[in-house]
Amino acid sequence: MEIRSLVLRSVKALSAYEAKNIPCRIKLDANESPYNLSSEDMDIVRNSLSSLEFNRYPDPQARKLRAVLARRYKVKQSQILLGNGSDELISMLIACFGGPVLYPVPTFSMYGIIAKAAGRRQVEVKLDNDFDIDTGRMLADIKRVNPKLVFLSSPNNPTGNCFSSERVLGIAKTAPGVVVVDEAYQPFARSLGSNVRRGFLPLLKDYRNMVILRTLSKVGLASLRLGIMIASEEIIAEVNKVRLPFNINTLSQEVAIKLLSGKDSSAKAVKLIVKERERMFEEIAEVDGVVAFPSDANFILFKLEDPNMVYNRLLKKGILVRNLDKVIKGCLRVTVGTPQENSAFIEALRMVMK
Amino acid sequence: MEIRSLVLRSVKALSAYEAKNIPCRIKLDANESPYNLSSEDMDIVRNSLSSLEFNRYPDPQARKLRAVLARRYKVKQSQILLGNGSDELISMLIACFGGPVLYPVPTFSMYGIIAKAAGRRQVEVKLDNDFDIDTGRMLADIKRVNPKLVFLSSPNNPTGNCFSSERVLGIAKTAPGVVVVDEAYQPFARSLGSNVRRGFLPLLKDYRNMVILRTLSKVGLASLRLGIMIASEEIIAEVNKVRLPFNINTLSQEVAIKLLSGKDSSAKAVKLIVKERERMFEEIAEVDGVVAFPSDANFILFKLEDPNMVYNRLLKKGILVRNLDKVIKGCLRVTVGTPQENSAFIEALRMVMK
Repeated sequence: MEIRSLVLRSVKALSAYEAKNIPCRIKLDANESPYNLSSEDMDIVRNSLSSLEFNRYPDPQARKLRAVLARRYKVKQSQILLGNGSDELISMLIACFGGPVLYPVPTFSMYGIIAKAAGRRQVEVKLDNDFDIDTGRMLADIKRVNPKLVFLSSPNNPTGNCFSSERVLGIAKTAPGVVVVDEAYQPFARSLGSNVRRGFLPLLKDYRNMVILRTLSKVGLASLRLGIMIASEEIIAEVNKVRLPFNINTLSQEVAIKLLSGKDSSAKAVKLIVKERERMFEEIAEVDGVVAFPSDANFILFKLEDPNMVYNRLLKKGILVRNLDKVIKGCLRVTVGTPQENSAFIEALRMVMK
Repeated sequence: MEIRSLVLRSVKALSAYEAKNIPCRIKLDANESPYNLSSEDMDIVRNSLSSLEFNRYPDPQARKLRAVLARRYKVKQSQILLGNGSDELISMLIACFGGPVLYPVPTFSMYGIIAKAAGRRQVEVKLDNDFDIDTGRMLADIKRVNPKLVFLSSPNNPTGNCFSSERVLGIAKTAPGVVVVDEAYQPFARSLGSNVRRGFLPLLKDYRNMVILRTLSKVGLASLRLGIMIASEEIIAEVNKVRLPFNINTLSQEVAIKLLSGKDSSAKAVKLIVKERERMFEEIAEVDGVVAFPSDANFILFKLEDPNMVYNRLLKKGILVRNLDKVIKGCLRVTVGTPQENSAFIEALRMVMK
């Protein structure tokens, strides 16, 4: 029996997502926080384990954790759904609403990858020259294909900018389906005026078709795989129907409850990362032959003549960045690390570009 | 905008899976192991956390854990795929091969629930009077509907018996699609002669369309959500295409690596559970008005006149079992607990049935 002949046609065409494990000294490729738990937090985590029942299933509704998050985001617990990373939330949204799935490009690659694996049509709409939403083009495509889901990553990965609020809201107002604003990088954003910290959350009640995604992965807890969906109770109830009952394991629930209930130790790290991002931006921009793009996230996109050469020579010095040449011609992306790591990167970049 | 009108028709009809949290003193409803980690293992786990990078993404390929499991199951690492519980593996299989999805009933409810949520046709084939596969009926239905996937839970939940090997292999030989043998309860089985411990694993090489599911959930680690798929490299490579890249979080990977690398501390617990199961079977069978079904799993199905009354009166005494009256008329299912819990259950059952 030929196994491949049994595979769904849409899946047969896929190749597995290969998240490569490239050895390096300074890892600035995955938009992780450079800061591990403080020894104080590590103690809290270690102590909390003694009371866990490893032999029992997790709380299938993750009630305690959702209560903690509801307070944090100032929404009702029934407005929160958790995923095994935002990836799983994206997957649930597509399983619930179907396709076509529309999103601007370049953006986070998983919208397209997950839609494709689910056999749903993907419609990509180019961003404008400032990496902002091209409203005319997007509205035209929305009208043409009637997407069930629109994904907007703001701040956008890998470009780093927030989309203009007016344009996002214009899409949310006009789209016939659900509009997902993926705010994975929102904690690092400064461009939304007085709503800096909360992003589009305060607008949820006015846009019944809006879904907001948050995550703990960029603020120091990528290991836990905790994606957070916030929306109207109605949307949450529908998406919850396709959720696998025990999708958040006990350890991730417990660690997140313990760390988010106390004082928010990630806030200080976020502040430092934002400060470092500003320094890096200025220093990268000053390097001859390099154009840096302003960022509201924990990474910086930059452009130069020969990205493959620069990528390889940085790696030779032990510094791993993301090579995006195939996504945005000439571009590399560097995650903001510790001040020392950032200085080492800048120093190396200067040497390479000399 | 009416959100419900946007939801896929197949999803709209679903209701969310409600895993209820019923307060009780003795929890014998979920086929968990009654034994938490030993204090020795708890120390191992606690100590291993100090070296973890909570801020980094998990190993997307879970290489170390898959290597440990490959040794345990005597297969190649490339024959193993991990899921966030077997639920996710079932979901991946359906995402990869599609439907119709065929399975005998009564059986584990998630095959049907997940197929339905994915919008795939489910075909249910009744087991025979001994709860074994009704080969004639199943082969006829297989011929009729051409299922892409057949799910066989052996030992079967909730009936407790292993299907006869000949019948399973007959299905595997004849089915035009993939045949999944879900061996979640295999560690508790004794009915496969000399292959007791390994179940259908030694036969994988002869049946290229066979997939075996194992899990850590029944042997003391339900908290981790670790489902294990074992199959040919070819099948694993195809299913891996629909896997979300970081589906196994760092903590679950690390705890499983540490606990499975040392001496297998679950083996002693499994032995004790099997011994207790035999005692419980005899004692339940001796209660007037109760019929107990022999079990190869860590639970026992039993039948009586008024299951709802008995369920409620057991619960009043603080003992939670599973009420399966709607699935198999007159039946309750009790998980094997600690010797003390089991004695309390038997005692309570005797009182209730007096």
